Amino acid sequence: MTISETFLVRAREGRAFRVAAGTDVRVVNTHGTQVVDTWAFNAADPAEFMSMEHSRLHMGRLNPIVGDALVTNFRRPVLTLKEDTSGGVHDTLLAACDQYRYELLGYSGKHDNCTDNLHAALHEIGLHVPLTPAPLNLFENSMPDANGLITIKPPISPPGSHVALRTEIDLVLVFSACPQDMAPTNGAAMRPCDVHIQIFGPTPS
Amino acid sequence: MTISETFLVRAREGRAFRVAAGTDVRVVNTHGTQVVDTWAFNAADPAEFMSMEHSRLHMGRLNPIVGDALVTNFRRPVLTLKEDTSGGVHDTLLAACDQYRYELLGYSGKHDNCTDNLHAALHEIGLHVPLTPAPLNLFENSMPDANGLITIKPPISPPGSHVALRTEIDLVLVFSACPQDMAPTNGAAMRPCDVHIQIFGPTPS
Repeated sequence: MTISETFLVRAREGRAFRVAAGTDVRVVNTHGTQVVDTWAFNAADPAEFMSMEHSRLHMGRLNPIVGDALVTNFRRPVLTLKEDTSGGVHDTLLAACDQYRYELLGYSGKHDNCTDNLHAALHEIGLHVPLTPAPLNLFENSMPDANGLITIKPPISPPGSHVALRTEIDLVLVFSACPQDMAPTNGAAMRPCDVHIQIFGPTPS
Repeated sequence: MTISETFLVRAREGRAFRVAAGTDVRVVNTHGTQVVDTWAFNAADPAEFMSMEHSRLHMGRLNPIVGDALVTNFRRPVLTLKEDTSGGVHDTLLAACDQYRYELLGYSGKHDNCTDNLHAALHEIGLHVPLTPAPLNLFENSMPDANGLITIKPPISPPGSHVALRTEIDLVLVFSACPQDMAPTNGAAMRPCDVHIQIFGPTPS
């Protein structure tokens, strides 16, 4: 028996969770249009973290499908994709957005961004990590074409669709509801939205 | 007028170079079958480094072609691909090999690897960098197929072919002649080979 608890990740914000090994974590694309930058750190040693460049070789593909495990920079499985009702389009290729990205797009002044969200969310739970791993960009629609050309298109995930990830070790998970509002990353309307995180834990005895 | 100097990077080893902005650096695939893991760090601040996940968005493609610039984690151009006589097949997707990789392939004992080569080469010039960025894997033949499936195939680069990279800022460049001898990364014979680095500097006045 398990119980679940649902958490809100507000549009443009990030949130960190300590999650034990063997937990199922659902990332729910509540409005369907929202990309969720996702990171995982070994709770016992954040120098070990989920790595896209190691995961692509381990999976043998660009984009995880149900059954695939993502691995750390020490090549250990860390998250397994258990369910995917989103259409299966995600991204492992692109960096988290950052202040530089918005300045290059023409924004002046401070813009919310996933890189700052990661570090703020870690700070909230008392952690500092001196680098920004490439994230797993859930629901991001940027698969290269047959010539390897990359364009960012609106997500295809239906409202309320989700991915379920099983934690393989004790983790710190961080999710950022990407603040991108100057490109169609988060839909043609370029309007970041809330998402929900549902964590299935063992029933307390 | 410029002069050039040629340096050897021995099979299975790495080597670091301090190179001023505006320099042309040729990476010569002397035997044609050798992958060269390549890193670039801002000489003034190694916390800024060439980043594959930022470069793919900047270039709009998986694989650099002549004229493309690779960028740092601060999204600044750092190396521009000026010439490519190798056939144009490189890799930006896969992590540097490491001890874990060889253990997973069944090797017992210490195996030479590009990750250790990077840090040893930096140490030789008095630098310490607390992370291993994803490298630009010159000549590596691992482009995904139309379904996004990744397999590592022997390089297609002819013997003596090269890429020329122009430095856009003062850099520390590191090259590792990949020690992979348990997969066809470095050719069907799985035999790592020497490569050469040719650096074109201004004529001393």
